[in-house]
Amino acid sequence: MDSETRIPRAALLDFVSAVYVRAGMPEDDARLAADTLVQADLWGHQSHGVMRLPWYLARIEAGVCAAVAQPEIAIDAGAVAVLDGNEGMGQVVAARAMDEAIRRATSFGIGAVSVRNSNHFGTAMYFTLMAARAGCIGFLSTNASPAMAPWGGREKSVGTNPWSWAAPAGSHAPLVLDIANTAVARGKIYLAKQNDAMIPRGWALDATGAPTTDPSEALAGVVLPMAQHKGYAIAAVMDVLSGVLSGSAFGAAVHGPYQAEHRSGAGHLAIVLNIAAFQPLAEFNGRMERYIAELKSAAPAQDFDEIFYPGEIEARNDARNRAEGIQYPLKTLAELQRVAQRLGIDAP
Amino acid sequence: MDSETRIPRAALLDFVSAVYVRAGMPEDDARLAADTLVQADLWGHQSHGVMRLPWYLARIEAGVCAAVAQPEIAIDAGAVAVLDGNEGMGQVVAARAMDEAIRRATSFGIGAVSVRNSNHFGTAMYFTLMAARAGCIGFLSTNASPAMAPWGGREKSVGTNPWSWAAPAGSHAPLVLDIANTAVARGKIYLAKQNDAMIPRGWALDATGAPTTDPSEALAGVVLPMAQHKGYAIAAVMDVLSGVLSGSAFGAAVHGPYQAEHRSGAGHLAIVLNIAAFQPLAEFNGRMERYIAELKSAAPAQDFDEIFYPGEIEARNDARNRAEGIQYPLKTLAELQRVAQRLGIDAP
Repeated sequence: MDSETRIPRAALLDFVSAVYVRAGMPEDDARLAADTLVQADLWGHQSHGVMRLPWYLARIEAGVCAAVAQPEIAIDAGAVAVLDGNEGMGQVVAARAMDEAIRRATSFGIGAVSVRNSNHFGTAMYFTLMAARAGCIGFLSTNASPAMAPWGGREKSVGTNPWSWAAPAGSHAPLVLDIANTAVARGKIYLAKQNDAMIPRGWALDATGAPTTDPSEALAGVVLPMAQHKGYAIAAVMDVLSGVLSGSAFGAAVHGPYQAEHRSGAGHLAIVLNIAAFQPLAEFNGRMERYIAELKSAAPAQDFDEIFYPGEIEARNDARNRAEGIQYPLKTLAELQRVAQRLGIDAP
Repeated sequence: MDSETRIPRAALLDFVSAVYVRAGMPEDDARLAADTLVQADLWGHQSHGVMRLPWYLARIEAGVCAAVAQPEIAIDAGAVAVLDGNEGMGQVVAARAMDEAIRRATSFGIGAVSVRNSNHFGTAMYFTLMAARAGCIGFLSTNASPAMAPWGGREKSVGTNPWSWAAPAGSHAPLVLDIANTAVARGKIYLAKQNDAMIPRGWALDATGAPTTDPSEALAGVVLPMAQHKGYAIAAVMDVLSGVLSGSAFGAAVHGPYQAEHRSGAGHLAIVLNIAAFQPLAEFNGRMERYIAELKSAAPAQDFDEIFYPGEIEARNDARNRAEGIQYPLKTLAELQRVAQRLGIDAP
């Protein structure tokens, strides 16, 4: 059940930042990490929002994630680089990787930064949008702890391995893709559990391999890939790009944000294309506006009022939630309250 | 119904090459274009195999696809380039783009070639495998003629927009992803029609927007995206990368290989990462072998004997079909026979 009051973005940002600072993070890093959580809520992706704060906090307190992130360039080779995250907060490491990739793309037309020894970074589109705002097209992939079986298997050994592309879109908010390769993001199952809701059939199998609609049983079992073998194949490729290529952990050796006792081992890959190297940015923006107008002009199907381009729903949610504040499930607010009390910080 | 005899690869290659040469293609280009079709059959992807020869031929004969491909570099900017296909055969243009991207990746660690004014290139993995064989990771996307509605729409305005990634895998055949973003590749519906077979529910809607299992009705209606809104979002991104960024056609302005009366306008994007810029290739190959061993080690699910890594089934089919020859539906053989008679060439 949701709270009736809406909490303003600024209050949330201050609170989450204060928690991260109390945990030992430098002020700037704390604000960045806080912003990634609050921004996910603004977009309407509460499964990746401040609901996750206690998990990140537990990992910092357990010492498996460094509060003071010290990512360093392990290989610097012009258009490409390898960034060692040194077990720092994934959000801080991913932002650094994207900054580096944008800088390299500006010089070379394209840039790539391969990241090892990082952590769960939250929502991938937070970082690809950095590229879009810089007049670039951005790609970011990560591997993640095992969440689904390989296609044809019944043991969970393949991660959700999310990936994102974002591109500027002229007068519109950027066109953005941000997906996990499971039939559903695991966070959505946590959110259902948080809300005492059932999940649809087709999202997951229970521990015995049977279909289930109970979020707790699903979390003990195995999530199904999206689009059957296709989602499995995409997830495998994202692990090759993120884990195998970077020299980080891959496959079952990657640990997720829900476990406070293991280092993550997560790896990422950021690729950025500088649009101006291919055509004038203004021309690209005009073409994007025409493309979006065309997508939205198709006659709507039954039960739909409007066709959205990818990223449009998030942009609308963001505008509303920024203006009116964010509503949370009461359970989430209670957890934030517990964190606040324990650390002696005012809850938002 | 399939023919009982298996046709050897060499005979098919000679026949298809001879047809393309008769249509005006230079010998080398004809053999390349022929190889892409025969190779698709070797992999077991007959929907993209020599069954398509009459369509490509019709486009060359109609003058909408140039028999003598003359792709030229429109922008040459170090790690990135824009290649103008000048309406040449997509297979020839895509191979040139991949060669250029590999060459640039070898110098810069990463390379990208954006392609405009090309044509349908057949199977994307044919070209990403060029990168894998060169010790690189290859990506290739294309846009395609409208095949599905945008999510929430009932008019077909979004292409299948296939994309592929391939990576070397040590002693194994490369790990390869090659997918369209529709619930099914349109070619598989053509193949079902060719074989007088029905299609599963969930693949397509008919022209009135109702589900159908009849391939002819499906071809007159609309294919559904894979994974619902996710497949729509991926398809849109692939059009941004392939069509909007390259300066080629995008959206409904792209025409497919089934229509002989329109220029294609298809655009592509090739991205290549040189593995050696990130870690020694031998180390990467060792890591890939461990990753594949892990994927394959999961206990099989009900009705499965073995877990395959992405690309493994194609590699097995290739080994068998290379040794034993390829079986075709009788309808396909009859069509090849008609092409052979018309052009005065011996059928395979």
